[in-house]
Amino acid sequence: MSWKLTKFELDNQNLLVNESLLSLGNGYLGIRGNFEEGYKEGFKSIRGAYINAFHDETDISYGEKLYGFPGTQQKILNVIDAQTVRIYLDGELFSLFEGEVLFCERSLHMDSGFAERIVHWKSPQGKEVKILFKRLVSFTTRELFAMDIKVEAITPVGQIRFVSAVDGDVSNYVDKEDPRLASGHAKRLHVTEVRQEDRFSIVKDTTYTTNLEVACISSSAVKAEKYTYDSKLTDSSIEEIYDCEGAEPVRFTKFNVYTDTLRHGENVVEAALGILQQVQSRSFEELLDEQRVYLDNYWKVSDIAIDGDERVQEGIRFNLYQLLQSVGKDTASNISAKGLSGEGYEGHYFWDTEIYIFPVFLMTNPEIAKNLLLHRHSILGSAKQRAKEMGHGQGALFPWRTITGSESSAFFPAGTAQYHISADIAYSYIQYYLATKDVEFVKDYMAEVLFETARLWADAGHMHNGRFRIDSVTGPDEYTCIVNNNYYTNAMAKHNLLWAAKVYELLKEADSDRLHQLASRLKLAETEVGIWQSAGDSMYLPYDETLGINAQDDSFLQKARWDLKNTPSSKFPLLLNYHPLTLYRYQVLKQADTVLAHFLLEDEQDFETIKNSYDYYEQITTHDSSLSSCVHSIMASKLGYQEKAYDYFNETARLDLDNTHKNTKDGLHMANMGGTWLGIVYGFAGLRLKESGLSLAPDLPAEWNSLEFRLLYQGRLLKIHKTREATVYTVVEGEGLTISHNGEELHLESGSEVEVP
Amino acid sequence: MSWKLTKFELDNQNLLVNESLLSLGNGYLGIRGNFEEGYKEGFKSIRGAYINAFHDETDISYGEKLYGFPGTQQKILNVIDAQTVRIYLDGELFSLFEGEVLFCERSLHMDSGFAERIVHWKSPQGKEVKILFKRLVSFTTRELFAMDIKVEAITPVGQIRFVSAVDGDVSNYVDKEDPRLASGHAKRLHVTEVRQEDRFSIVKDTTYTTNLEVACISSSAVKAEKYTYDSKLTDSSIEEIYDCEGAEPVRFTKFNVYTDTLRHGENVVEAALGILQQVQSRSFEELLDEQRVYLDNYWKVSDIAIDGDERVQEGIRFNLYQLLQSVGKDTASNISAKGLSGEGYEGHYFWDTEIYIFPVFLMTNPEIAKNLLLHRHSILGSAKQRAKEMGHGQGALFPWRTITGSESSAFFPAGTAQYHISADIAYSYIQYYLATKDVEFVKDYMAEVLFETARLWADAGHMHNGRFRIDSVTGPDEYTCIVNNNYYTNAMAKHNLLWAAKVYELLKEADSDRLHQLASRLKLAETEVGIWQSAGDSMYLPYDETLGINAQDDSFLQKARWDLKNTPSSKFPLLLNYHPLTLYRYQVLKQADTVLAHFLLEDEQDFETIKNSYDYYEQITTHDSSLSSCVHSIMASKLGYQEKAYDYFNETARLDLDNTHKNTKDGLHMANMGGTWLGIVYGFAGLRLKESGLSLAPDLPAEWNSLEFRLLYQGRLLKIHKTREATVYTVVEGEGLTISHNGEELHLESGSEVEVP
Repeated sequence: MSWKLTKFELDNQNLLVNESLLSLGNGYLGIRGNFEEGYKEGFKSIRGAYINAFHDETDISYGEKLYGFPGTQQKILNVIDAQTVRIYLDGELFSLFEGEVLFCERSLHMDSGFAERIVHWKSPQGKEVKILFKRLVSFTTRELFAMDIKVEAITPVGQIRFVSAVDGDVSNYVDKEDPRLASGHAKRLHVTEVRQEDRFSIVKDTTYTTNLEVACISSSAVKAEKYTYDSKLTDSSIEEIYDCEGAEPVRFTKFNVYTDTLRHGENVVEAALGILQQVQSRSFEELLDEQRVYLDNYWKVSDIAIDGDERVQEGIRFNLYQLLQSVGKDTASNISAKGLSGEGYEGHYFWDTEIYIFPVFLMTNPEIAKNLLLHRHSILGSAKQRAKEMGHGQGALFPWRTITGSESSAFFPAGTAQYHISADIAYSYIQYYLATKDVEFVKDYMAEVLFETARLWADAGHMHNGRFRIDSVTGPDEYTCIVNNNYYTNAMAKHNLLWAAKVYELLKEADSDRLHQLASRLKLAETEVGIWQSAGDSMYLPYDETLGINAQDDSFLQKARWDLKNTPSSKFPLLLNYHPLTLYRYQVLKQADTVLAHFLLEDEQDFETIKNSYDYYEQITTHDSSLSSCVHSIMASKLGYQEKAYDYFNETARLDLDNTHKNTKDGLHMANMGGTWLGIVYGFAGLRLKESGLSLAPDLPAEWNSLEFRLLYQGRLLKIHKTREATVYTVVEGEGLTISHNGEELHLESGSEVEVP
Repeated sequence: MSWKLTKFELDNQNLLVNESLLSLGNGYLGIRGNFEEGYKEGFKSIRGAYINAFHDETDISYGEKLYGFPGTQQKILNVIDAQTVRIYLDGELFSLFEGEVLFCERSLHMDSGFAERIVHWKSPQGKEVKILFKRLVSFTTRELFAMDIKVEAITPVGQIRFVSAVDGDVSNYVDKEDPRLASGHAKRLHVTEVRQEDRFSIVKDTTYTTNLEVACISSSAVKAEKYTYDSKLTDSSIEEIYDCEGAEPVRFTKFNVYTDTLRHGENVVEAALGILQQVQSRSFEELLDEQRVYLDNYWKVSDIAIDGDERVQEGIRFNLYQLLQSVGKDTASNISAKGLSGEGYEGHYFWDTEIYIFPVFLMTNPEIAKNLLLHRHSILGSAKQRAKEMGHGQGALFPWRTITGSESSAFFPAGTAQYHISADIAYSYIQYYLATKDVEFVKDYMAEVLFETARLWADAGHMHNGRFRIDSVTGPDEYTCIVNNNYYTNAMAKHNLLWAAKVYELLKEADSDRLHQLASRLKLAETEVGIWQSAGDSMYLPYDETLGINAQDDSFLQKARWDLKNTPSSKFPLLLNYHPLTLYRYQVLKQADTVLAHFLLEDEQDFETIKNSYDYYEQITTHDSSLSSCVHSIMASKLGYQEKAYDYFNETARLDLDNTHKNTKDGLHMANMGGTWLGIVYGFAGLRLKESGLSLAPDLPAEWNSLEFRLLYQGRLLKIHKTREATVYTVVEGEGLTISHNGEELHLESGSEVEVP
């Protein structure tokens, strides 16, 4: 059943992967799918609870530290652990690694927003029980992580004991066998409050450097015929013990409320107590109902239905569900590379947001999309500061990796040098405007972001022989770093510059007072706008006459070609087996670069150039990055390479479910998850969003019978149903509109279906 | 007097600088010019004793560690401290920071190889003494550091006490106020033996990681009418106390012998005792005599006499003296960037050796020059290993920074990427051959080094449109990193490749058996030689038609030009005030790059191109590197820019004496010291060493009356005396020869002077 992800495995490798796959979250709080009672000794576990953007700062060490290298790095923290519940049957500790497991099934319910574990177990001494674990992280009360455990005795059990713990002595994950994970940065929180009050367990932790606080207030209860209660406090934790006797089933519930300084101000404990009091009256079932309602609304717009491919159907639903669980919904947060499912990439926000994830929300949940933009706007000050540090007289250079705005990348050739992130952010603002035509948003946020990023490009580049050039940057492809005139960067910068000028004119028309205020605040003269226009108009976009392709950068095509066919499979990913200089020396790509630019800005080049480029770069692209295959799928769709499109799409749809990159244990690959959606909607269905409006060119992989999805566009809800024979468009909500279908105008009336071949 | 460097200062900054300037050494052992009794409290001191190549390994931390990044770094160690001697006058401790300094002068005697401190001092209680400190590091017994102290009472002193210490509890220098020097790597030695035996103080230390041992055996004595002796041992040190009474002067001597595992094998203590027994019978005066004889021989060939410029005369003599003191004279060692005068650059060997220092010794002390080459040959195995790590199928890539062969650079864009070091080493081998015509050396060492470096280039580069190109390297100029077809690198690689092929042919003629053996050992087929020849012949050397100059690399001339004239002086050196990416974005140079290539390989281009290039690059060169000005001086000489040549030369001649780079306290700038000699001999006198023979084109700066220097060339000693009117050549030793003078053949008979205009 494709609304439910089910897992059975009990070996350590799969348990670790399933911790990520079965993680729960709501964009604020994330809880990994750990066992309440833990694993057996010697098993690794990344036991984790994360609050989006809640972080500490750690020093970055460099063998040689040069000017402008960030001295510190932000790092998401594993916060207070409230997952622990140990169950004793007449003194025998329940564990799936002892006794006999008669049945065990774990599920993630993507339509109803909870995870469950169903266990039928016989203890070493022969006691037989069924235990049903349920847990949820609430979509409606973001601070709440609730657990529900029902124990049913099959053979007589005299006493059932629940030992529930809240533990503030937590660390980030360290693996002594993996030097990359064996850092001294693990312990970044110390316990600053432990107390019990009226059956509330109260634990507060404080970070070492940033002095941020996180509180977890936990309230537990049992339903049993008879029970006794006890509790134990240590310096860092609280244990609550329930000894239950009498008729079964016995039921244990635990509501844990997390608060933090970034959202709840100085009194995190009081804030948590207030929230707990509000939710405490609700039953676990009521919470489940709320989840269902929330998710019904989500899926109503966001679901993609594929007939004819169960595995892909499972993949796309799982991906869309996990995106919803991980995406930040307040302006303190964004969506990190691994979401809230793990600690990989330190919880940092990358360009992944703008290019791979933002479009999904833009076309299905524009409020979430808007929030992602507002977060970027909130760090504009840091980006302006960073531009200064990087030697620019003006403008905003967004950090390659960050949480609250400071650059956290420790290797600048594949970090800070990726200037394109500033244009990527501008691009997403422009897309937002095209999807919403929200002029107030332009005035409040977009104009400033576009102006400051345009200023960056105006300063970073220079005119030479009538062309505007941008030197010493790294494009998306990290196997070629610090180059001149990276096609992707230049094309995106051009878009950024020209739209900054366009928005200036738009505001001059729409609200010259506001423009005047803004220009005055930014000390922006109209002459600057002329410079943007002229830089954009003169932008140099490398093109090779002989090959008829856009060169990835000025020098790329002069390099030797890497012989991918004769590279042993053990040597992939290349970055783990070759020094950067070795990779830089060759024509070899980690991920789509020029091909991605041709997707995002397809009108910059004619079809032939785009096709030639795809054909050329595909031969030398490793897809060592999880951000690559989806782009090749989309572009293969555009170019009519249907089989390729489907093959690349398949690489993305189940990347985490099948752990094909071997590191899902560290967290899910959020960008790739967005990429799956892009592969369908932008790829197979050919969606594009331009000034000219919305266009589609739906096609169906040979393996599918039909495809159905919905889009939100300028206040309308559109349904697209594609079968082998036809496409049916319906404006489900909102006014009628004219779109482009396969390059031809098509008018859609509100409410009525339009079927076209 | 230009044979003596004299200092008086007692302020902390000057004391630190003088520790470097007045350091003593012999290429094996170096002792900084510290006060025996120390400074006053709160004063910083880099109290140091160093053994060339004696090192430990420390971990390198990276924010992101990628494949092939060195995990450890070698580091020269400050070894056992034997400098300490405290003097008490009737219980009053002698200190230049108490009482009254009636006279104090410190001198380095460059003609006789010792340092002295002459003090006339009145104690707080009014006791007046003259104290004469002398110290030497023996050129003839490399392990020996000897001290001699004479105390003469001017007013009556009842008791004179000497407290002499040998202390094994030593660390490298750490400055808490400077994060670059506040590392945790300071303490790398622990004391493993402390004992006294027959008045020998024996202290042995062992490194933490490399398990290398260093011993210091010290023997002290006094000459006094009457004295008592006592000694004290701690866990890590030995103090010897002499209480002297009776007639003065009283004299204290101390012979300290240092041995280490790298040179003396497993029993460093026994080895030191053996050496001490040999030297102990000699008086300090006899040691001084030996120094004088050694230096007479040195100066007889190496001295440069300048009439008319005392300051420059002092500079060049000081530089030549310090080079002799620092250059390694055994195959375990080379010459580190700061020599044996300080800890800067961790005692690493760089290309500084080959390009700036080797030529000095080649033309004045070929045995020392040969030893530098042998050290490089000894690390060929590491260089071959490194080439493999860097993705090359074959060849040798020499480490950018190293002591015993492993790459110790922690920032590859300005480290490992400087592939040119392999061609620089090949260049020095070729120069050695041209200066000596030593065919046995070719067979034993040079052929292998040239073949393996040629293999590197053949693998690192590739043919493209009929040109051989070398991508993704960094040239000498570290303000532009990771570029394609750096002119310097390509020109030097071409030289390397063609000479490898030439040497193959030479050996085929001279000793085909040996060639066969070597080729068999290296698995070298003759087809490879053809590839070298063809790669060299087809080498791409960037040239810009419009400017008529060689481009620094493929993209350099397309970048924006840095506006040096409007850069405030507080922003220099640029690398301390701008992020590398900022610097990479512009045409701006840290140091000579193409201009250096035009010096080393002047026949690659015509005069016009060389002149145009100089004119172009000079405008955008900061000379932030101490390796730059000398090259500009040499090339200004060649191009007839006499004033510029003299101005640049003046930047180099007294760089350390005047502490113009503000970091002389961390050690002397060895490469610049070599550069001074180059500026005179290659610059003003126009020396070149080519297959066609020796050529000169002597000129005199307007400020000088005459210049005289000597050269050793193919077994002959030549004297060159240049006055305003003429040049006089004399073959002082050896057979007559034909040289080129101002481009015309000139035959010199043995023994007779030839005067030419």
